[in-house]
Amino acid sequence: MDQKWLREQTQELELALAEQGFRGSVPMVVDRQPPQVAEVPEGKLNLARFIDHTLLKPDASRLAVKQICEEAREYQFRSVCVNPVHIPYVAELLQGTAVRPCTVIGFPLGASTTLTKVMEARDAIANGAQELDMVLNVGALVEGDYAAVLSDIKAVRDAAPGVVLKVILETGLLTKEHIVRGSILVKMAGADFVKTSTGFGPGGATVEDIRIMRAVVGPDFGVKASGGVRDYETAVAMIRAGATRIGTSSGTAIIRGVEGAGEY
Amino acid sequence: MDQKWLREQTQELELALAEQGFRGSVPMVVDRQPPQVAEVPEGKLNLARFIDHTLLKPDASRLAVKQICEEAREYQFRSVCVNPVHIPYVAELLQGTAVRPCTVIGFPLGASTTLTKVMEARDAIANGAQELDMVLNVGALVEGDYAAVLSDIKAVRDAAPGVVLKVILETGLLTKEHIVRGSILVKMAGADFVKTSTGFGPGGATVEDIRIMRAVVGPDFGVKASGGVRDYETAVAMIRAGATRIGTSSGTAIIRGVEGAGEY
Repeated sequence: MDQKWLREQTQELELALAEQGFRGSVPMVVDRQPPQVAEVPEGKLNLARFIDHTLLKPDASRLAVKQICEEAREYQFRSVCVNPVHIPYVAELLQGTAVRPCTVIGFPLGASTTLTKVMEARDAIANGAQELDMVLNVGALVEGDYAAVLSDIKAVRDAAPGVVLKVILETGLLTKEHIVRGSILVKMAGADFVKTSTGFGPGGATVEDIRIMRAVVGPDFGVKASGGVRDYETAVAMIRAGATRIGTSSGTAIIRGVEGAGEY
Repeated sequence: MDQKWLREQTQELELALAEQGFRGSVPMVVDRQPPQVAEVPEGKLNLARFIDHTLLKPDASRLAVKQICEEAREYQFRSVCVNPVHIPYVAELLQGTAVRPCTVIGFPLGASTTLTKVMEARDAIANGAQELDMVLNVGALVEGDYAAVLSDIKAVRDAAPGVVLKVILETGLLTKEHIVRGSILVKMAGADFVKTSTGFGPGGATVEDIRIMRAVVGPDFGVKASGGVRDYETAVAMIRAGATRIGTSSGTAIIRGVEGAGEY
């Protein structure tokens, strides 16, 4: 990572935020080596605990939702990620297991109001969600309205105490500069993860973007790779680049890659 | 339109709703000729009053939003349709004009909870929206959980008295049977329009789907064609098939088609 460039991004973000009335400090992400986060051993890995087993198709049936919950219990995936309308059912199916019900907020455009995102988050938690993947205000990020991006995430953070909060940048719409500044804002807002993609926009997770995000947020913060992660090799490449979570609808295929094709 | 088939669809919907605990009547959509709705004269038409001038890209800038508002004022489009986060600005820009601020609810997946859709609708109205385009619960429609589809729309209808409510089916995910039953449910719920597509899913408006929707809802109900309507010829074809509103991001191109290319 180019440390000088990272420092410049941080300083420009700090300046813009000050101009927009923000009175706080921006964490410096530079002057240290990009951390080696995941000590990934050679050979096959069991990736199950990295995986958010995901089904976000608008026409998903209850049967399909039930099936991914059963798969998640069998393979011990980290979470099952579904649209908000399915959370009551998923919470019921996953009760008594270590698999966490996860849902999405302001998804996939990120262009609903902060009030709606807050209400959606509260509703999801009331329905049993333990993890929330929100989309930030992409338009505001692209335009440099950083104060708006920050307050939007902070409002959801405040509405969801104790819940794992991941914030989607939708990297396929962004420049490297946007990704750096967006990642800093996600960390400043007190979220738990910065996440690449919705899977509904252009592009998906790339090794380069994961490296940038990891360098920016430092070692003690979550990075979730999502969008186009469909096999074991890609999942491992993301983890080696710094991802600590993988969002995918191909969780069982990825695990089958580990255990040997055709075994399942 | 095959009247026998339409009658069967209506009867099966009525039966399913009764089994799901619904105690009301289902409007019969059959035993009459498909109405000739729009008497479309030969020659060029001014389509401006049919057009919802639409910008729903997640990374839309304020400048782009301002531009479509200026175009809408100039051409006298029916509405400007933007994501909820832009409605306060659009309402301000359109103040004192006949162009109506329009926004989207539960968009584009339709898979947020009814409570979230209701809160989003209230918030949008408070911010100045005069028309709402909501996405119905596509998964419930496909699975035949018609009572859930109906109550979801009704709740938004109740939360938005006096506001034009359009309901998106996302026809690209649906069979003809789904489109008939969905259209009946939209009418039963007291909405004002049935609408084809979000523009973010597979497919868009087709002449055949518009004909089906018009035959089902009868002459005194709105039908909005959206998704892939990018030129004058397509827009006119939709109107001749029964559409009374066109959702498009190509409003000025469509109008330029009327006024002569290169004039604008």
